[in-house]
Amino acid sequence: MKTIKEELENLRDGDLYPFHMPGHKRNPDAGSMAGYMDIDITEIDDYDNLHDADGMILEAQKRAKRLYGADETFFLVNGSTSGVLSAVSAAVSEGGLLIAGRNSHKALYNAAYLRKLELRYLSPVRVKVPGGGFLMGAVDPEEVEKKLAENEKAEAVFITSPTYEGISSDIRKIADICHKYNKILIVDAAHGAHLGLHEGLPLNAVTEGADIVIHSVHKTLASMTQTAILHVQGDLVNRDRLRRFLRIYQSSSPSYVLMSSIDSCIGDIEKRGDEIFGGLLYYKDRIFKETADCKNLFIAPAGIISDPCKVLVCARDSAITGQRIYDILRLEYRLQPEMAGDFYALMIITGYDTKDGIERLIAAIKDMDIRITNGDIVKEKSELKKAGINDITEKESGINTEYPKALFPIYKAWDTEREMVDITTASGRVSGEFINLYPPGIPLIAPGEIFTKQMIHDIGEYINADMNVQGVCISGNGDRKVSVLKSAD
Amino acid sequence: MKTIKEELENLRDGDLYPFHMPGHKRNPDAGSMAGYMDIDITEIDDYDNLHDADGMILEAQKRAKRLYGADETFFLVNGSTSGVLSAVSAAVSEGGLLIAGRNSHKALYNAAYLRKLELRYLSPVRVKVPGGGFLMGAVDPEEVEKKLAENEKAEAVFITSPTYEGISSDIRKIADICHKYNKILIVDAAHGAHLGLHEGLPLNAVTEGADIVIHSVHKTLASMTQTAILHVQGDLVNRDRLRRFLRIYQSSSPSYVLMSSIDSCIGDIEKRGDEIFGGLLYYKDRIFKETADCKNLFIAPAGIISDPCKVLVCARDSAITGQRIYDILRLEYRLQPEMAGDFYALMIITGYDTKDGIERLIAAIKDMDIRITNGDIVKEKSELKKAGINDITEKESGINTEYPKALFPIYKAWDTEREMVDITTASGRVSGEFINLYPPGIPLIAPGEIFTKQMIHDIGEYINADMNVQGVCISGNGDRKVSVLKSAD
Repeated sequence: MKTIKEELENLRDGDLYPFHMPGHKRNPDAGSMAGYMDIDITEIDDYDNLHDADGMILEAQKRAKRLYGADETFFLVNGSTSGVLSAVSAAVSEGGLLIAGRNSHKALYNAAYLRKLELRYLSPVRVKVPGGGFLMGAVDPEEVEKKLAENEKAEAVFITSPTYEGISSDIRKIADICHKYNKILIVDAAHGAHLGLHEGLPLNAVTEGADIVIHSVHKTLASMTQTAILHVQGDLVNRDRLRRFLRIYQSSSPSYVLMSSIDSCIGDIEKRGDEIFGGLLYYKDRIFKETADCKNLFIAPAGIISDPCKVLVCARDSAITGQRIYDILRLEYRLQPEMAGDFYALMIITGYDTKDGIERLIAAIKDMDIRITNGDIVKEKSELKKAGINDITEKESGINTEYPKALFPIYKAWDTEREMVDITTASGRVSGEFINLYPPGIPLIAPGEIFTKQMIHDIGEYINADMNVQGVCISGNGDRKVSVLKSAD
Repeated sequence: MKTIKEELENLRDGDLYPFHMPGHKRNPDAGSMAGYMDIDITEIDDYDNLHDADGMILEAQKRAKRLYGADETFFLVNGSTSGVLSAVSAAVSEGGLLIAGRNSHKALYNAAYLRKLELRYLSPVRVKVPGGGFLMGAVDPEEVEKKLAENEKAEAVFITSPTYEGISSDIRKIADICHKYNKILIVDAAHGAHLGLHEGLPLNAVTEGADIVIHSVHKTLASMTQTAILHVQGDLVNRDRLRRFLRIYQSSSPSYVLMSSIDSCIGDIEKRGDEIFGGLLYYKDRIFKETADCKNLFIAPAGIISDPCKVLVCARDSAITGQRIYDILRLEYRLQPEMAGDFYALMIITGYDTKDGIERLIAAIKDMDIRITNGDIVKEKSELKKAGINDITEKESGINTEYPKALFPIYKAWDTEREMVDITTASGRVSGEFINLYPPGIPLIAPGEIFTKQMIHDIGEYINADMNVQGVCISGNGDRKVSVLKSAD
């Protein structure tokens, strides 16, 4: 059986002339995208159809399913976004109730909006990184049990594992609890496509009992951006309904280049998985060992960050801010991080990094560390203190279940007449928008929830500290406005 | 200002090392997709964000908007599908009423399902191709006026122009009527991205008064499959609402390769538009002239098919079936058509075709014509007659408004309990699925509509004639089953 790429290359090298879409006609001079066109086709005879696969695309999906040990696997060309929308739409009736981690990707909130769902939130446990600050961590199985017991009408549970920072939940336990209640467990494992594919990696939700698992194959494996896969296990999920929504949320002209890249990525793992993941583990180990003597910087330990792909370069005792680590790595060492947290910069490594790249990272961390010791890098701790950031990171360990009270579900609030008001006057008003703090990306408030004085104070602090707050409009003169539902009067 | 591709190439050739997604790290050896990875990135500093564009992506969208003369243009990485879903969701309230061509793409029906819309249908006028059969043609402005007058609650009108076969409606007239009623006109011009870009081409809906126009830039221009653009004009459309839905229906990790390919495609037209479209018009003219003497085959005339990209190779007086033309062109001449109609094969040509490809097509048509005359190609007219195809193509000229009666809107019927029954027993039952006939792709029946004896008879004829009917399950022993709502009893 040939791979999708081999089939497309045969077509490219053959004599069949294209009087069909795409309009570039696989012509290398077309549109100045030479090198990207010659295997880009549409559904023609013998080349299968993603939305009704029975040929080479089905075969490719089966290879992926076998690799992960899933019952069925679907290729996604509209990212994990389309996987989350489809999974939630298939698993929960319109207007139904879903128990979901508050740290869910925005696609989950969009699904709740489209399908008029009511959400009951799970609060990921906050975990302290010794020497650093707090991270949003795993979902507590006991909280899942409690929420299921309280919400008989819930149809499914939706959690994110591993998190952006690489923290995994105990999927086996959570799946067992969900299945005791006969509920579907959906795991957004967008960041965990590599899990379970090597003995040195954490287990994959697919083999740990989840009913639907969504993987972004571009995030930690070698597929192209915007590609993902969705796995289904068992018979709790209505597969016809799932297929319906996969067709709805994805282009009817899916890109063969994207599909081929998923297939090539899976094929590469089949052939060279040991080498690739062995390389990843070796890289992570070297980074740990060779930076172990640093005084001001450290790598968040594997005991907390179980995913070796996530390298959190942390400041010890607030020696420097995460944003400063990010900026210096990027601008002075020419190493582009993925994200800045309050006390760390998040670097993604994979088995596809080069030895040279890893060595540049290690050298940069060691060099920065010496410069901080020598006072060559201006510390910003005083700035942080002024902004009260230490209060934020020290506040609230353990489970936080204190989300704002919701007066309306998202779909009602988001489609009601709204107005912009000064945030200082918003206390007691119903929010018309999401306000998110990155990281960790959890909504501070969702449409339909009520602003409190404490929350308004906290949001002010985050903005003063130059943290990434989305959903507050800041005008030229510094006014901060938020969206609220129009008053009845 | 640099193009997206130039920016990405600079990054590729620079010294910035990627400790971020995608996991392939732009490594040419990653995942065996060499040549497709090196400019594939995610949203990093300075590379903008499709969902909140203010840098190079915004600049690229502005170049596209200027080319088409639109007020605002959005790049789409999830195809025209995401454009149709977003346009309809933004233009019509949830649960609202939409007037739509019955020949709409399935994305329109999916939007109606997701947003619980009621649909009132417009019937494209059937047009006779002299010497051949009938095609589904333009929407009649008078019917739009009539439907708007009858349906005060309608919020928008949705039409497809040009059609798959290249027939355009009078957008100027239809837009004027819509605006007289203060309603939004959405034009699905997926097949018309090239229109209006050269004096020899038909006018583009963007400059003819439509409020939203959706173009598949991969269909007739040189962008990659799955790319599209959406134009907005005037102030009838709520832009915030449109942006919301564009974010909902598209990946939060949009492909830079796809976006770059849209930008490169637009740039190519800016630079070489006259050459490219001049080439297209020259090709079309040559095909017309050099096949003019054929006796059994002819090219559908420009008076009906105004779009030069669409070459309908038609059988004169049912000399041969469209499927047979398609198969012979493909298998014997190695020319892959886009589609087979009942009396024609549809070939797509663009300015990116090669002279050699066009000459092969001309030679093949002339050779086939001689072979038909000589009796070397078995005619299938008798088969056609037996199946009653001539009756079908001769039946119903003029406007057909006789769609089946709807008992429920699509969203109700599609989410109600359904069962499969033998089609012979379905008369009077409510359909639970779409049954489509390709071409023209118009639903014979939609979920919620009632089966009639005549329709069941017609569907049987189409299947007997080996036409492409979707939505009927045919078992191994020949039983034909359809989905209907479960009886109350």
